[in-house]
Amino acid sequence: MKSKLINESGEKTFVVIFEKGDEVLETLRRFANEQRLLASHFTAIGALSDVVIGFFDLVKKDYKKIPIGEQVEVLSLTGDIAFEGDVPKIHAHIVVGKSDGTAHGGHLIAGHVFPTIELILVESPKYLQRRLDKETGLALIDLAAA
Amino acid sequence: MKSKLINESGEKTFVVIFEKGDEVLETLRRFANEQRLLASHFTAIGALSDVVIGFFDLVKKDYKKIPIGEQVEVLSLTGDIAFEGDVPKIHAHIVVGKSDGTAHGGHLIAGHVFPTIELILVESPKYLQRRLDKETGLALIDLAAA
Amino acid sequence: MKSKLINESGEKTFVVIFEKGDEVLETLRRFANEQRLLASHFTAIGALSDVVIGFFDLVKKDYKKIPIGEQVEVLSLTGDIAFEGDVPKIHAHIVVGKSDGTAHGGHLIAGHVFPTIELILVESPKYLQRRLDKETGLALIDLAAA
Repeated sequence: MKSKLINESGEKTFVVIFEKGDEVLETLRRFANEQRLLASHFTAIGALSDVVIGFFDLVKKDYKKIPIGEQVEVLSLTGDIAFEGDVPKIHAHIVVGKSDGTAHGGHLIAGHVFPTIELILVESPKYLQRRLDKETGLALIDLAAA
Repeated sequence: MKSKLINESGEKTFVVIFEKGDEVLETLRRFANEQRLLASHFTAIGALSDVVIGFFDLVKKDYKKIPIGEQVEVLSLTGDIAFEGDVPKIHAHIVVGKSDGTAHGGHLIAGHVFPTIELILVESPKYLQRRLDKETGLALIDLAAA
Repeated sequence: MKSKLINESGEKTFVVIFEKGDEVLETLRRFANEQRLLASHFTAIGALSDVVIGFFDLVKKDYKKIPIGEQVEVLSLTGDIAFEGDVPKIHAHIVVGKSDGTAHGGHLIAGHVFPTIELILVESPKYLQRRLDKETGLALIDLAAA
């Protein structure tokens, strides 16, 4: 993974280019830590050699995992970075296209890049904070806490 | 729904966090009115307890409504705000993921948030104007009118 | 196709409104040349009268073409512009919705607008360069070359 700051005037815009074999979330988390990113949001396209998507099961309060063990085009990868305590948390949803052109997607759990992901990330000079929502068990962005 | 201005330097960037039960378009329309938003565009992810998507029927000059009466992940919600006369009009397209990982979508007609939608909205200090296109019956953005 | 610069403070933000019959990539390429765009990224929604999507076949090192010969809603069109030598190259992935609400998508090869595409393009005052990746035959963004 390589990144480049392409704009800096209040907000910062980065291009982040992922490399073959990178796990998307782990790589982005490393980038967020290295750059000490505050509130950020991103969009990306590219392709993956495999991906695990999730659908949140409200009864089990956990993600049902749906593995897709084949090469897919990444049609859209959209997400944000906010803090849960002191830790930057990435929340991303993905749409992928299979070789027959059908689209699938969910909450991104894991995915390996092949051959590239081209991601545009915009960092704002503010904090966003997540806080546990007891009803669902999910950490939701709480603007009152920011 | 809560919102926060996270950047202001020519453009303004807002984070808008929707709450359980919010109807997406009605809530966003209220936000647009309260903030007196000019030309704006947005992207979002999150989840809905139900959604109605539309496919524009060129013969009937109206949207065919496709109700999806189940919990879905919002994989991408992309749209813009422009004026039709004096009224800010929201135009949004959505991709949702069902519990089996298949993706569906169309023009967003209505949807109820559960548990959250995280939306990034960028407002530009300009007007965009919609004008009726007689052939289709749709109000399209007319840059000559701006 | 018409466009309007809606922000200029380091980055420039354009609204680009496509017209009936415009071929998306050809029109965007003309716009990129006319405006001498540097590193840019964009998102769009709208509708097409037909579209050809691609899935990259790693064995053949070429895109498998999947033609969709019907009216579709454009649920998300996401991409970037970078240089391959002296030539600005557009890379775009698309998700479309059919009349039954199912979503399909891939690498955008070609598509004709009907009745409109509303595209937001952000140009950064930097270059991005693509370079041939021998393993796949694809021209990937190379930040070391920028």
